[in-house]
Amino acid sequence: MDTVSAARSHGGVQGVYRHEARTTRCPMTFSVFVPPQAANGDTVPVLWFLSGLTCTHANVTDKGEYRAAAAKAGVIVVAPDTSPRGPGVPDEPDNWQFGCGAGFYLDAMEAPYADHYRMYSYVTEELPALVAANFPADMARQGIFGHSMGGHGALTIALKNPGRYRSCSAFAPIVQPSTAGWSRPAFAKYLGPDEAAWRAYDATALIADGCRVPELLVDQGAADGNLDDGLKPWLLEDACRRAGIPLALTMREGYDHSYLFVSTFMADHVAWHAARM
Amino acid sequence: MDTVSAARSHGGVQGVYRHEARTTRCPMTFSVFVPPQAANGDTVPVLWFLSGLTCTHANVTDKGEYRAAAAKAGVIVVAPDTSPRGPGVPDEPDNWQFGCGAGFYLDAMEAPYADHYRMYSYVTEELPALVAANFPADMARQGIFGHSMGGHGALTIALKNPGRYRSCSAFAPIVQPSTAGWSRPAFAKYLGPDEAAWRAYDATALIADGCRVPELLVDQGAADGNLDDGLKPWLLEDACRRAGIPLALTMREGYDHSYLFVSTFMADHVAWHAARM
Repeated sequence: MDTVSAARSHGGVQGVYRHEARTTRCPMTFSVFVPPQAANGDTVPVLWFLSGLTCTHANVTDKGEYRAAAAKAGVIVVAPDTSPRGPGVPDEPDNWQFGCGAGFYLDAMEAPYADHYRMYSYVTEELPALVAANFPADMARQGIFGHSMGGHGALTIALKNPGRYRSCSAFAPIVQPSTAGWSRPAFAKYLGPDEAAWRAYDATALIADGCRVPELLVDQGAADGNLDDGLKPWLLEDACRRAGIPLALTMREGYDHSYLFVSTFMADHVAWHAARM
Repeated sequence: MDTVSAARSHGGVQGVYRHEARTTRCPMTFSVFVPPQAANGDTVPVLWFLSGLTCTHANVTDKGEYRAAAAKAGVIVVAPDTSPRGPGVPDEPDNWQFGCGAGFYLDAMEAPYADHYRMYSYVTEELPALVAANFPADMARQGIFGHSMGGHGALTIALKNPGRYRSCSAFAPIVQPSTAGWSRPAFAKYLGPDEAAWRAYDATALIADGCRVPELLVDQGAADGNLDDGLKPWLLEDACRRAGIPLALTMREGYDHSYLFVSTFMADHVAWHAARM
């Protein structure tokens, strides 16, 4: 693991790191904020932030405004990239909803994507092991959240790994990627035409199929232009109601899909996770 | 004035705007955050943030983490660009310390720069008039701050306009640009070889020449790699001591020159200004 950069911020250290990833077969970059509470060798809880389409680790690291809250609560925040990248990684450079920047936190099953697009394994296995080995992380106390495609990632990963994450929340998540216009084509290419296989990466389907989390926190901008196509938070509301999963979904009047929305409610989410981790 | 973008954030509105500037003879872009307190037609104080070398309005708008504090305090934050830009504006594209992105908040006197590089007039006259006409701004209650080259801008502009700004602070300012290695060549090209003329844009010289502000707040990273060349905060300390200007200068252990430093102390600065505006 190489250190790309590391600088003091809000009393802790904001770093960016790079490593040769085994799961995605390419170099991967990620950011880690270590809060001041870990300075004396103590371990602290780990909060995973998964980013949305087109993003790298850098978007939330630059614009997420999470460091003040994470420093106050004493939690590590890890922000992975959203896909494999680089020479040899199959991509559609003109398509922002597929390929690089659009890994959808799944393990692809179809050629030629299955060799590299394994973000589910990367985020749930390889990167946690690397973080545990290199940072003062209490891996028994993890939480996960994300934005848009990363909200989908957080929901599905928490649902598929009961007990591993003590808390799960999302900003404007894609709650039903198997029907959303901006994810169906990607799911078909990554997972193949059999839509039964897509259920393993669809939060509403996972809930219908019996996966459970103790509770969920979701904030959604009411002025988000993608409400009726990509997002449809009411589908998550329905699924949670049927399953008896407590969901705190708040529609935020006037807010859009950008980091100007995410950053507004970031401190609330970090504090909510910290209280549960 | 055209609206480039506007989105709700932290209860207010973060906008980016563009206009044909008379002083700099080119289109200029700037950002304005209007806090929720102005929603009902009330005017609120205006805090000017001047950015550093290579920056546009976007750096602090994305990474500055000022919105939460500005929304709490009820102040408008305006972030201008750092220079004129575009076709017809003389530049040295390979030189980050001169030309576009390096206007040094002065009015150039030398050809071919004097036609466009008039950031002092732009920031003190043209843009305030535009802001007053288009935003719920109480222009009797202004404060000014900035980072690095923008810290130089804030200090010199406050010193040269006694009474106009109720408060002035800086992050890692260039306190003596007429001697600093990274500004001397620019001053020579913008202002000519007669260094007497440079004193009008040098905070320590302005103080020595009798300009006064009621007090100053400065934060400086102790791990900033530019301490001994570009910054030398002890020169400002000397000048203020001789002049009897109260200066609260804090060296911040471990912090560098980046926005990871600026954002850490941003909320403190915004609150400090709000208490004085």
